[in-house]
Amino acid sequence: CSSTTPITATLFPGDGIGPEIAESVKKVFTTAGVPINWEEHYVGTEIDPRTQSFLTWESLESVRRNKVGLKGPMATPIGKGHRSLNLTLRKELNLYANVRPCYSLPGYKTRYDDVNLITIRENTEGEYSGLEHQVVRGVVESLKIITRQASLRVAEYAFHYAKTHGRERVSAIHKANIMQKTDGLFLKCCREVAEKYPEITYEEVVIDNCCMMLVKNPALFDVLVMPNLYGDIISDLCAGLVGGLGLTPSCNIGEDGVALAEAVHGSAPDIAGKNLANPTALLLSGVMMLRHLKLNQQAEQIHSAIINTIAEGKYRTADLGGSSTTTEFTKAICDHL
Amino acid sequence: CSSTTPITATLFPGDGIGPEIAESVKKVFTTAGVPINWEEHYVGTEIDPRTQSFLTWESLESVRRNKVGLKGPMATPIGKGHRSLNLTLRKELNLYANVRPCYSLPGYKTRYDDVNLITIRENTEGEYSGLEHQVVRGVVESLKIITRQASLRVAEYAFHYAKTHGRERVSAIHKANIMQKTDGLFLKCCREVAEKYPEITYEEVVIDNCCMMLVKNPALFDVLVMPNLYGDIISDLCAGLVGGLGLTPSCNIGEDGVALAEAVHGSAPDIAGKNLANPTALLLSGVMMLRHLKLNQQAEQIHSAIINTIAEGKYRTADLGGSSTTTEFTKAICDHL
Ligand SMILES: CC(C)[C@H](C(=O)O)[C@@H](O)C(=O)O
Ligand SMILES: CC(C)[C@H](C(=O)O)[C@@H](O)C(=O)O
Repeated sequence: CSSTTPITATLFPGDGIGPEIAESVKKVFTTAGVPINWEEHYVGTEIDPRTQSFLTWESLESVRRNKVGLKGPMATPIGKGHRSLNLTLRKELNLYANVRPCYSLPGYKTRYDDVNLITIRENTEGEYSGLEHQVVRGVVESLKIITRQASLRVAEYAFHYAKTHGRERVSAIHKANIMQKTDGLFLKCCREVAEKYPEITYEEVVIDNCCMMLVKNPALFDVLVMPNLYGDIISDLCAGLVGGLGLTPSCNIGEDGVALAEAVHGSAPDIAGKNLANPTALLLSGVMMLRHLKLNQQAEQIHSAIINTIAEGKYRTADLGGSSTTTEFTKAICDHL
Repeated sequence: CSSTTPITATLFPGDGIGPEIAESVKKVFTTAGVPINWEEHYVGTEIDPRTQSFLTWESLESVRRNKVGLKGPMATPIGKGHRSLNLTLRKELNLYANVRPCYSLPGYKTRYDDVNLITIRENTEGEYSGLEHQVVRGVVESLKIITRQASLRVAEYAFHYAKTHGRERVSAIHKANIMQKTDGLFLKCCREVAEKYPEITYEEVVIDNCCMMLVKNPALFDVLVMPNLYGDIISDLCAGLVGGLGLTPSCNIGEDGVALAEAVHGSAPDIAGKNLANPTALLLSGVMMLRHLKLNQQAEQIHSAIINTIAEGKYRTADLGGSSTTTEFTKAICDHL
């Protein structure tokens, strides 16, 4: 369909509804003539019979080599001692920034119709250090680690993103009035980077106040950048404003231009295999991947087709109050292309 | 007005708009015939000329002796090395649980009309340990401390609260999938206490998912109990659902039956002294104090008067879109009594 040399991208369909929604993406991308060859790898809670492993070296190498990929939901393997596969991927691939655009979908009504913001989450350290221990019986501690290097890196990404995406403001979210050293260092790094971007307004907002403002008036925000846990919390809150994780895309950015787009919702084992899942989050994540690859024309085409299908309301999956199957919804999107 | 022996309660009007809204409480309480003698102490960012101190021993002793008090907003003294006065009070008085009821005010429209929940926040430890240091240049850490004792204590308070207030469910909010040891211990303690309250439904909700559910459908929640920082974040989010911190009361519970009710909004220096402040949060906090003292009749009377005044809409302060002064709004409430 396209004359450009096809790009190879890694695909991790994941667990539960993962394979069905990945199927939907493949279908839509093919219909739109996206010049992508998928390199599909199984990563999930079933042990791969060939490698006896959840996450194989070749899966990681595939992303490292292709520098671009799309991932579905992965459940955390049951039993103690297994680190979440999502976290393992972030660590192993050094995916330092998690970007989640969050905007009201035309035609899908929530309590908010004025949401259009981007959360950018530091994705490698902070409260996710994994460093915890018992001090004495009944007293445990977890370490939150903030480094200058990771803070500068994510701040730089946020300001660069703002500048290149026509955004006007970056808000650093923190609790430096309590964690003066850790969140204080994070803010210091944001301020340093802010100086290099005089055209972008910079502000600092305390996380509790930020959450209150977000639910009162999300239009107050533009780009938000923050340490790991705050990003986890605020990105889900923002997703809730526009309908939930089933509708919001995300993309993880690593060093050397690696980008792993990701649907951040769960694997929904209850409806897996029943052709009921909503592929929107994975599709929109795929669109983010296309934009990252500068395949802007196809990205916009697919984006419009998804938005229009949802807005029309004739074909919607059950989570959006409709009765379409995954296949019917996918077909409706393809018909829009 | 009342035949009971008056109760002595401590009053910290605080900074900024504090004195004006405290005046409003005194007026309303007097009009309702509440049998309280206020023992007023200045605690705030101005150094007390008599003691050369922000927070005097006698202020703390007053709460310890009276076991009950009401506090307005206190700003953090400017300059490094000053701990927030709010935090100092919590530490010194061992105020281990912060209780914030959060409900839609009849007649005051927000995006939500179905909010009726209680957040109960552990108030002494967790991310507020104050323990932080630089590991090497560019690498800092903060310690989050969770203890069995403080977790059991706040869990016990939450379940007891649920039981004695006709509530059906307690949700423990956590991130134990990441902080397995600290939040894990918190959950373990909640589970232990839950077993003693078979009539109360107990559930555990991950904080990111909780925030998403709260903005989508706050009616899903009843009583929420959680570690310090999550409580800080979620209580502000919930306040936002019903209109903000200007409308939501809170009460801090200490050992030996100490209760310090508190308006958690800021001191609003920009409008201080201008007779423009909204005293609702402090008034409703005062109502919580009255309920704590089992002065239920006066509590309900005053509560209705506040609610009805706001619902009628004739007298509202500027923050609620009206043009009444603090005095006019207060008088309207008194007229309802
Ligand atoms: C599943 C969980 C470990 C993960 C996180 O906390 O980062 C998830 O909430 C997310 O946001 O991707
Ligand atoms: C002012 C600040 C230190 C305080 C806190 O973080 O606890 C405030 O947000 C609160 O909720 O009372």
